Amino acid sequence: MTIISDSPAPMEAAPGFLMASEIGEQPQVLAGLLDSGLHQFSAMAHIIKKAAPRFVLLAARGTSDHAALYAKYLIEIKLGLPVGLASPSTLTAYGAAPTLDGVLWLAVSQSGGSPDLVESTAAARRLGALTVAVTNSPDSPLAGAAEHHLDIQAGKESAVAATKSYTAQLLALWLLIEAWGGGSADDARRLPEWAATVLEDDAVVDIAGKYRFADRIITTGRGYSYPTAREGALKLMETSYLPAQAFSGADLLHGPFAMIDSQHPVVAVVPEGIGGAAMRPVLERLADRGAHVCVVGDPTAALRDGLVLPLPTGVPEELSPILQILPLQLLALQLSVARGNDPDAPRGLLKVTQTW
Amino acid sequence: MTIISDSPAPMEAAPGFLMASEIGEQPQVLAGLLDSGLHQFSAMAHIIKKAAPRFVLLAARGTSDHAALYAKYLIEIKLGLPVGLASPSTLTAYGAAPTLDGVLWLAVSQSGGSPDLVESTAAARRLGALTVAVTNSPDSPLAGAAEHHLDIQAGKESAVAATKSYTAQLLALWLLIEAWGGGSADDARRLPEWAATVLEDDAVVDIAGKYRFADRIITTGRGYSYPTAREGALKLMETSYLPAQAFSGADLLHGPFAMIDSQHPVVAVVPEGIGGAAMRPVLERLADRGAHVCVVGDPTAALRDGLVLPLPTGVPEELSPILQILPLQLLALQLSVARGNDPDAPRGLLKVTQTW
Repeated sequence: MTIISDSPAPMEAAPGFLMASEIGEQPQVLAGLLDSGLHQFSAMAHIIKKAAPRFVLLAARGTSDHAALYAKYLIEIKLGLPVGLASPSTLTAYGAAPTLDGVLWLAVSQSGGSPDLVESTAAARRLGALTVAVTNSPDSPLAGAAEHHLDIQAGKESAVAATKSYTAQLLALWLLIEAWGGGSADDARRLPEWAATVLEDDAVVDIAGKYRFADRIITTGRGYSYPTAREGALKLMETSYLPAQAFSGADLLHGPFAMIDSQHPVVAVVPEGIGGAAMRPVLERLADRGAHVCVVGDPTAALRDGLVLPLPTGVPEELSPILQILPLQLLALQLSVARGNDPDAPRGLLKVTQTW
Repeated sequence: MTIISDSPAPMEAAPGFLMASEIGEQPQVLAGLLDSGLHQFSAMAHIIKKAAPRFVLLAARGTSDHAALYAKYLIEIKLGLPVGLASPSTLTAYGAAPTLDGVLWLAVSQSGGSPDLVESTAAARRLGALTVAVTNSPDSPLAGAAEHHLDIQAGKESAVAATKSYTAQLLALWLLIEAWGGGSADDARRLPEWAATVLEDDAVVDIAGKYRFADRIITTGRGYSYPTAREGALKLMETSYLPAQAFSGADLLHGPFAMIDSQHPVVAVVPEGIGGAAMRPVLERLADRGAHVCVVGDPTAALRDGLVLPLPTGVPEELSPILQILPLQLLALQLSVARGNDPDAPRGLLKVTQTW
């Protein structure tokens, strides 16, 4: 896997060097979290179980919001608790003061620095919620505002486009929820090895070439894999300025389906398992419209004349999002470079976004 | 307000006749709901107050999902209850069985016919939630699956692109939540008159001309007005096949901001009030990037060389979404026709979308 096909390895001066390096670190980051991070999750799960929340609110922005959405599916499906994604502005701008006893407030942020998350988490704590911050920065304002903190241990992330912090957030949230439900972390043991395999595959180089002149793209997935569609679209937007639109497989069939034609690529995330099966009718509709589809995941779902970014087989569906995003991160990187941009210096963006 | 500038009035054969007719009916639909529909909302509010839910889950798809998002802000801000948007697939495809006692489950759908909503609402009822369906079809499967039903009384909607059913959903949800909070409906009395004023304004014709060749568009808003940005984008997608991307003002400043340049229009929904004030820093950032912005709402927020779709002054912010969407519906209609499409026959879509 190289950034530009005619250079043997990324060099520090090359566009996308930071992003490529951090993408490449992910197998080690996942392994580190599995090796040394488990105690914090079981300890935190113990605290949560004791509090016995009846409802969970997740607060996050940007990439972290997609990790929060993944946690929403995990908590609803594995733990049977209702979950909501918080709208921080209701607590900050509008000054709402809901009663939050019996609520677990999970704030997710790489930097832990966004003022609206800090403020809304402090408000949630005052209003009676059990507050837990999940960040990559134990010294951050968000970690300080929440009663408890979980460290995703991804190491310093320098690229503007979050990559290793995203997969570390996903695994950290999975580990927390798995421990909360009384499970072991055994199912996740092979993730570092699987991730390394995925990153070695260079199918993405060819696909980046095919998408070089695309002027828009649609991504789609269902259930556990819907966050992958959202995060993949965000990577493409922030590095390639490509208008990428993510829809759940179900929502796509509502109004947005009118945009489907043969001129614009669709990326469909199709894991083995229930979420992948639920995508099959969507794939059929896409085929009927003559759409050009790239399947991420299960090669048996590929359409005729379509593309595939295959993932290892035998991965439990609930863990597959941690792998699915890897080829899409690489695609965003490759496409940005192919278009003459530097994904490490996306126009108009800073690493920590301040929003109120 | 005419559909095509050189025809004096919409004719039945003209492209967009159905959509134009139904857009035009909105003042009467709102008036009808205010005149004859109030009793059902106070009766339903009485039932909900007695059940004293601790948490609300909203379930919807497509346009109705934007009405649900509006209700989320209303309930959180006005009633101080935490709210989540349900992910129907967790209950249907994944078979999750959360404990839902103490939960109010509000399902919103124009047709009441989408199988996944019917199934997830039936499941929520079995799992202990107080279930209320808000539809335009009292005889629909969804109305039957829920314990209670509220009729938005919009009359038969024939155009594929939902218009009058959306504003009727917004008003119905506002009336329910207002009654639940013990308020009167007085603040909403002038809505029909305001809506008629907005629909008479033909500023949108000029803007549709300016957007004729746009190849993508971004919409944005915050708080109560974020659902408007989402629904406006959906109208543009389904009638003009224009890739329209909606972001909350806060999320836009994260990764998607890299897509902002002077070549692609931005529509910013800026009401009077808190949500509008929260948009001012976003407008400043957009101005710094040289973005071409059309402000919907408060003309004082307009950028230099920018466009405005003005709305009446003195509208309470929480009611403004019922008016904000009107010029965006007209814009979608005009733009579709200007591009040679028929908004009444969007490619690939049917009126009732079946998703599982």
